[in-house]
Amino acid sequence: MGYVKWRYEVLDRFCQDVFEAFGFTKEESGIIKDVLLTSDLFGIESHGMQRMVRYHKGIEKGIIHLDAKPEVVFETPVSAVIDGHSAMGQLVGHFAMEKAIEKAKASGVGIVTVRESNHYGIAGFYAKMASDQGLIGMSFTNSEAIMVPTFGRKAMLGSNPIAVAMPADPYPFFFDAATTVVTRGKLEIYNKLSKPLPEGWALDKDGHASTDAPDVLANIVGGYGGGIMPLGGNQEVTGSHKGYGYGILCEIICSILSLGVTSAHCCTFPDKTGICHGFVAIDPKIFGDAEQIKKHLSEFMEELRQSPKADGQERIYTHGEKEVIATRRAMEEGIPVNDNTMLELAELCDYLKLDFNSYFEGYEVVDDGSMFRGNY
Amino acid sequence: MGYVKWRYEVLDRFCQDVFEAFGFTKEESGIIKDVLLTSDLFGIESHGMQRMVRYHKGIEKGIIHLDAKPEVVFETPVSAVIDGHSAMGQLVGHFAMEKAIEKAKASGVGIVTVRESNHYGIAGFYAKMASDQGLIGMSFTNSEAIMVPTFGRKAMLGSNPIAVAMPADPYPFFFDAATTVVTRGKLEIYNKLSKPLPEGWALDKDGHASTDAPDVLANIVGGYGGGIMPLGGNQEVTGSHKGYGYGILCEIICSILSLGVTSAHCCTFPDKTGICHGFVAIDPKIFGDAEQIKKHLSEFMEELRQSPKADGQERIYTHGEKEVIATRRAMEEGIPVNDNTMLELAELCDYLKLDFNSYFEGYEVVDDGSMFRGNY
Repeated sequence: MGYVKWRYEVLDRFCQDVFEAFGFTKEESGIIKDVLLTSDLFGIESHGMQRMVRYHKGIEKGIIHLDAKPEVVFETPVSAVIDGHSAMGQLVGHFAMEKAIEKAKASGVGIVTVRESNHYGIAGFYAKMASDQGLIGMSFTNSEAIMVPTFGRKAMLGSNPIAVAMPADPYPFFFDAATTVVTRGKLEIYNKLSKPLPEGWALDKDGHASTDAPDVLANIVGGYGGGIMPLGGNQEVTGSHKGYGYGILCEIICSILSLGVTSAHCCTFPDKTGICHGFVAIDPKIFGDAEQIKKHLSEFMEELRQSPKADGQERIYTHGEKEVIATRRAMEEGIPVNDNTMLELAELCDYLKLDFNSYFEGYEVVDDGSMFRGNY
Repeated sequence: MGYVKWRYEVLDRFCQDVFEAFGFTKEESGIIKDVLLTSDLFGIESHGMQRMVRYHKGIEKGIIHLDAKPEVVFETPVSAVIDGHSAMGQLVGHFAMEKAIEKAKASGVGIVTVRESNHYGIAGFYAKMASDQGLIGMSFTNSEAIMVPTFGRKAMLGSNPIAVAMPADPYPFFFDAATTVVTRGKLEIYNKLSKPLPEGWALDKDGHASTDAPDVLANIVGGYGGGIMPLGGNQEVTGSHKGYGYGILCEIICSILSLGVTSAHCCTFPDKTGICHGFVAIDPKIFGDAEQIKKHLSEFMEELRQSPKADGQERIYTHGEKEVIATRRAMEEGIPVNDNTMLELAELCDYLKLDFNSYFEGYEVVDDGSMFRGNY
């Protein structure tokens, strides 16, 4: 098993058709597809094509409500509260960030808090929606609990990412990071490779640090305790309380302000996840000359990139640079999709009565030891 | 040398008189004093009485401009840009947060960015100003460079704290944390105690991890390179890029939006520091029922505190709880002040022609091995 690379256009057409086949409109399907493929273009495999199966299951189980539409239940010129009515998370997220952008353009700032949604893909997509229009964008989401509070042994907060985007040249500022030290997907990769986890990532069911990936994952799945450490580890000396604090901040903007479901209770219901989001858009014009501000940010980030490197390091990155490089490369060389994911996509085609071969002609699992194959 | 404890009232009267003697008005002196003593009440010794000497030097050198007043140079109903004109940082910070609060009360949100200020004490003080009035408050500041970017060897960002406060019962949410793993003060404490630094804190001049406190501090003071790691250490595997990203976020709100001086250039001028701040106030009413939101946050934080503890741990804290406990204790038992600091205060009295003994009657340095002495 390895990876097969596909041209962007192949995956684009496939995703569009899949979501239309589920019953979403053309426009809705385009939004969902854009969120997923942006993740793959950025090199974040965990939140792209690999997630198709999760959304399929969510729709089948009735956790994602196909016909539901997000609704504004309270608003002011600078804010809105949205009930997602358990619609597809990407559609709720897109709708909510559009609302934040609209308010930022009219009033300078838009803050939107959302309850009763679903997993919405990468947080950064929505922050980028704002920065693509010259604004500062922020995006937050809670999720099922995976972060163990400092000194605890039970996961009480989600991976609770905070994403921030702002225009700059030649690379925008684009920051998208879980407030846990890593996401669960990273643990799963180490598990698949039968490698011990790095120190400072995970806790066993009693709250002790653990590098035993199968044990940690079994405890998480079984709900026996343990989970992932906050950014900063599990001790105050390494700043555990700081990552834990950022996790709470994310929760405030998502589930507290919206009076929604906090992470410890998300995904415990038969007919919904209860996942909450938060979105902020700010027009830099409310601080004067937006072009001057963009230039100042561009110069600041260039200064960071050009600053002296540590012994043995060749490059200092600023956030957003890697995503631009990854996108350029994926567009030129194709997007890698795991053979396991390809099998899931084949099953999805069966379910939706789509012709797998009309997208992925000639695809077969070849155990020839090559990492990448495909039509790129 | 040890610590001597003083009743709050003693330090309150002393600080008020000191700042009035410098030439600040009664009201201004009260503000500066409140910022410093709030730090001591919270148990953050580094930013309280111990800082008096720094402000004294700043005024003497002409870096802090005694007669300068902060000025609003641009504003909208939801925002302001303030030029601090190198006035005392606490006065600039207080003025700017008052402006953010005023705008939040009128428009729902107030975002204020500040250039050309000075060190303003603990970031959390200003966030608390908002939460004491029922709002969500945020406070940010840059400073002289101390944080080394991921893969770098030169400090390019300040300790760049982010503070957030929001009302809740019985303890508010009060988060105030450097985006570096620790502040420079912590390194100085290890140095004084001749102890090696914990792993994951500091870098030597070549960008290698170092536990050698005297060497790291000498390199910082001499400008030879090295510094403190971002929250998350110096490797991507432990999330270094995340702390580095939060450091940039802080810089954006402070120095980028205000077109001010970024941390790498702060404190390099003969007549100013150029330090920048950022302040946000949000009225929870713009999301509906503020009382319900406060109740939801209170219950969420109680659930965190009551969640199962790790083996060997007795308590899970939420941010703000320790500060309430520390304040109660300091009010009952007195505020500890280091003998070194007491000697600095005596020199300050000489300089300002204040009678040291009228505040600290009978004080003498007694090397009797006791940790605490005083009039508490």
